[in-house]
Amino acid sequence: MTTPNPKRRATVHDVARVAGISHATVSRYLNKRAYVSQASAEAIEAAIRSVNYTPNRTARSLVTQSTRAVAFVVREYSEFFFADSNLSAMAAAANKTLSAEGYQMLLVIIESDEAAERIVDLIIGGFVDGALLVAMRDDDPVAEAIARSTIPAITASAPELPVGLPSVDTDNAGGSRAITRLLADSGRTRLAEIAGPAPMPAARLRHGGFVDARGAAYDPRLSIAAAEWSVEAGTAAMRELLERGEPIDGVVAASDALAAGAIDAIHAAGLTVPADIAVVGFDDSPWATRIRPTLTTVRQDPGATGRRMAERMMAHLGGEALDDVAEVIPNVIVERESTAPSS
Amino acid sequence: MTTPNPKRRATVHDVARVAGISHATVSRYLNKRAYVSQASAEAIEAAIRSVNYTPNRTARSLVTQSTRAVAFVVREYSEFFFADSNLSAMAAAANKTLSAEGYQMLLVIIESDEAAERIVDLIIGGFVDGALLVAMRDDDPVAEAIARSTIPAITASAPELPVGLPSVDTDNAGGSRAITRLLADSGRTRLAEIAGPAPMPAARLRHGGFVDARGAAYDPRLSIAAAEWSVEAGTAAMRELLERGEPIDGVVAASDALAAGAIDAIHAAGLTVPADIAVVGFDDSPWATRIRPTLTTVRQDPGATGRRMAERMMAHLGGEALDDVAEVIPNVIVERESTAPSS
Repeated sequence: MTTPNPKRRATVHDVARVAGISHATVSRYLNKRAYVSQASAEAIEAAIRSVNYTPNRTARSLVTQSTRAVAFVVREYSEFFFADSNLSAMAAAANKTLSAEGYQMLLVIIESDEAAERIVDLIIGGFVDGALLVAMRDDDPVAEAIARSTIPAITASAPELPVGLPSVDTDNAGGSRAITRLLADSGRTRLAEIAGPAPMPAARLRHGGFVDARGAAYDPRLSIAAAEWSVEAGTAAMRELLERGEPIDGVVAASDALAAGAIDAIHAAGLTVPADIAVVGFDDSPWATRIRPTLTTVRQDPGATGRRMAERMMAHLGGEALDDVAEVIPNVIVERESTAPSS
Repeated sequence: MTTPNPKRRATVHDVARVAGISHATVSRYLNKRAYVSQASAEAIEAAIRSVNYTPNRTARSLVTQSTRAVAFVVREYSEFFFADSNLSAMAAAANKTLSAEGYQMLLVIIESDEAAERIVDLIIGGFVDGALLVAMRDDDPVAEAIARSTIPAITASAPELPVGLPSVDTDNAGGSRAITRLLADSGRTRLAEIAGPAPMPAARLRHGGFVDARGAAYDPRLSIAAAEWSVEAGTAAMRELLERGEPIDGVVAASDALAAGAIDAIHAAGLTVPADIAVVGFDDSPWATRIRPTLTTVRQDPGATGRRMAERMMAHLGGEALDDVAEVIPNVIVERESTAPSS
């Protein structure tokens, strides 16, 4: 039998010895970097099976300088990530696109600052060929460290960083501008805003769209930033807006979950949606059709966002330059009961 | 300035030179494997900042033989994975448990046989210290290859493999047995079964629980295996059962999605749930309360499953033996409208 001592891991040298072929040829074959004859390939494959050789990827990636893996890094609590149909659709589309090109996507979720350090260490240390960064905060240390490194990265939002990063994202500002105008055009004049958590780029961009659409009518006393992207935070924010005592006849919430929470608070105050206060969200998540009244919202195309991030990364790893371009994926308004004119 | 040529990556030697400390000491400090003096540590940290040194993880893991990363490998289409609240709760709990111990979880989704090969190559090549394998098929080549390797692995189902793997799983057989008995005890005598896809261990175990609970009353003409874990597959299976012409007054479906599909088919045939046919599911997913009538089902504890997988892996990587033990997490029956006695 040619099997070596099972306690010792078989090496390329064992394969070369059993195949009766030079170590250099076996190495070339394993790294798929040059032609070897059909006869040699068959002898090598037989030897690999015989000695039960498995390539040591860590050693190999030092040689080829490629891992054929791309990280999909999400800065979000895992409960929110898995509950967010847009983020998961983005991850699924990126996974399919990378997989079709023979790349493995590694999904990593950052829930703490310790995890952030660990992930920067992994990525900058050459664990992957590239990184897709999703739901990062402004000045996110992960995005900043990776932007400063030699690892190519694309972000799904556009954090304000000292160093620019290419991005692909839904049209946050445009969607928010369009849905705010829809509400104003329907005759609502006292529009309040529940913005997303301040350090998130998507929150900042959606807030910018709201301010832009309001123009001279923008009133900061009617704007509030939610503590997080949750139903509970939407309820708390709406309660505070109502307690300020300013008249309100419409609410632009920066996400469907925030809108769902706002509707709860409006109902709890004895008011009706949309008769007293119209409410709009952002995302077209399952919330939008599950709550009553159903929600007028901005429908994203997260599949296109995930696919484009992966395609641009693949093109870059294939040799093209990675331009610092912010690619914007269009979205559409979906009108439902929460903005229906009172009959 | 001590900063080296920006085109060249700073090495441990640069750090040692700038710190005025031996390469061996810097290396020991970076690998956190032995004591260095406070003064040396400070000099090294200052030098790291000065030369902008980032550790090369690939090179380092060759030295330490540890990546401090654990793969969470899911064999499922990504749409199903993200839509499955049990799988995502399992992933979230494993992520939190590993993260708290300073380990990074890498979530990988296997959607094709090519992806399976790639992932085996990654894992066996030493990319991670351990692997958690979820939703594998019986005789899954990924589970088989990893079971034969030296990489420690724990599975969240119990595939029938030539080599045993330790597992943690919800009580599939027990849950199915209990919910089948509940239906029989309520006076239903003609119980049909919509089993899960044949090659899945969870499907096989749930089927075993059904057969066991039926005992002598088990009638294979009333059992059918769905093509996949989807609503559509549940509808198709139920339609076929009804077309067989055998009287049926109860259906045990192997998942809530299959049960939801079965209810659609029963309604389409002009029959009523539960008056004509009672239906039960498995999972207590969001389906269970979203459909009408609401669904009697088996509630899993996926958080406990994910947590226990991660805890056992951590204990093993910390030096304990990894016993080939199948750990079973108990589940409970939740009774709702779909089995209510006809009034």
